[in-house]
Amino acid sequence: MEATAKEVVKLRELTGAGPLDCKKALMEAKTFEEAVKLLEEKGAKRAEKVKSQDRETREGLITSYIHHSGSVGVLLELNCSTDFVARSDDFKTLARDLCLQIAGTSPKYISWSDVPAEVEEALRKEMMEDPQVRRRPADKREQIVAGKVKKQLSSEVLLEQPWVKDDKITVGKLVDDVIRKTGENIVVRRFTRYGLGE
Amino acid sequence: MEATAKEVVKLRELTGAGPLDCKKALMEAKTFEEAVKLLEEKGAKRAEKVKSQDRETREGLITSYIHHSGSVGVLLELNCSTDFVARSDDFKTLARDLCLQIAGTSPKYISWSDVPAEVEEALRKEMMEDPQVRRRPADKREQIVAGKVKKQLSSEVLLEQPWVKDDKITVGKLVDDVIRKTGENIVVRRFTRYGLGE
Repeated sequence: MEATAKEVVKLRELTGAGPLDCKKALMEAKTFEEAVKLLEEKGAKRAEKVKSQDRETREGLITSYIHHSGSVGVLLELNCSTDFVARSDDFKTLARDLCLQIAGTSPKYISWSDVPAEVEEALRKEMMEDPQVRRRPADKREQIVAGKVKKQLSSEVLLEQPWVKDDKITVGKLVDDVIRKTGENIVVRRFTRYGLGE
Repeated sequence: MEATAKEVVKLRELTGAGPLDCKKALMEAKTFEEAVKLLEEKGAKRAEKVKSQDRETREGLITSYIHHSGSVGVLLELNCSTDFVARSDDFKTLARDLCLQIAGTSPKYISWSDVPAEVEEALRKEMMEDPQVRRRPADKREQIVAGKVKKQLSSEVLLEQPWVKDDKITVGKLVDDVIRKTGENIVVRRFTRYGLGE
């Protein structure tokens, strides 16, 4: 398709990609939606590349968030590689969004790899005993339960949760977008959430 | 001694006690210093009485504090019995002061009772082996070491630390003063301190 100035602007707003990348994607794609998809795939690849470089992430910010009433509080450490990125608005906004997410959804873990194997196994066993599962054919149960376990646990994993401000993307995707924008790996290092009297 | 209006005011400012209590203390005491001491003893007794009533402390505030640079952060839960006290300036100021204290001194424990017996015992054993201690008479060593252990560990116990804003009083005394003022038990329930990249 043709890359009109108007569509380049629209695509930039939607994906956050650079003007040249947008123009190229529009020219390669047959429809506007396809251009969006192309850019997203490219962005995801770029984020993966940055993450795989394994550069040290020891800079960053400690951020906190308190509900007006003082009944819920969150403390978060978000890491990146340079002080320059730590002081950027994109990074600060991400830190703030993550605090809001944690305050609202009380995740237990940061990423999948933090879920202890015992927890996953205990839940799997429990679900295998579920009458609704036992009614299904024996050879299908494993697969059904695996899906259920994944679904239930991912609601407790911060990076797997749907973002509270836009549930079409996960929190992990939100972080990846800032990784792509800043060109620097960003790691949610740790968080603590207190609820009053809990 | 006589209780002049000027001295009552001075005593109130110093101790935070009520005007009648100040007047009575001045009349009972021989010197101004003695009056201060009388009031402090009375205040301590009152704080102890409030604490011993064992009323539920499930109200309060979650408070946080971040160093300007975002390199240190503290999350604190401070409890009391009523929402009324939780919203008072005295309580909020105390919560803020405790956060500053924790940010500055990194305590490990809230009170003495939180120090694990193993930790105390390990430190005691280590100090018994200290050449400086072994030079002292055998029958005195236990006592010397007990004092050293107490001193070293109390620097890691929030309520035993000297207050950073006025090292003549401990943090425990600071909390007791607000207990006395509000007439309600106040409990430091939990805290978390993050240092960037630690």
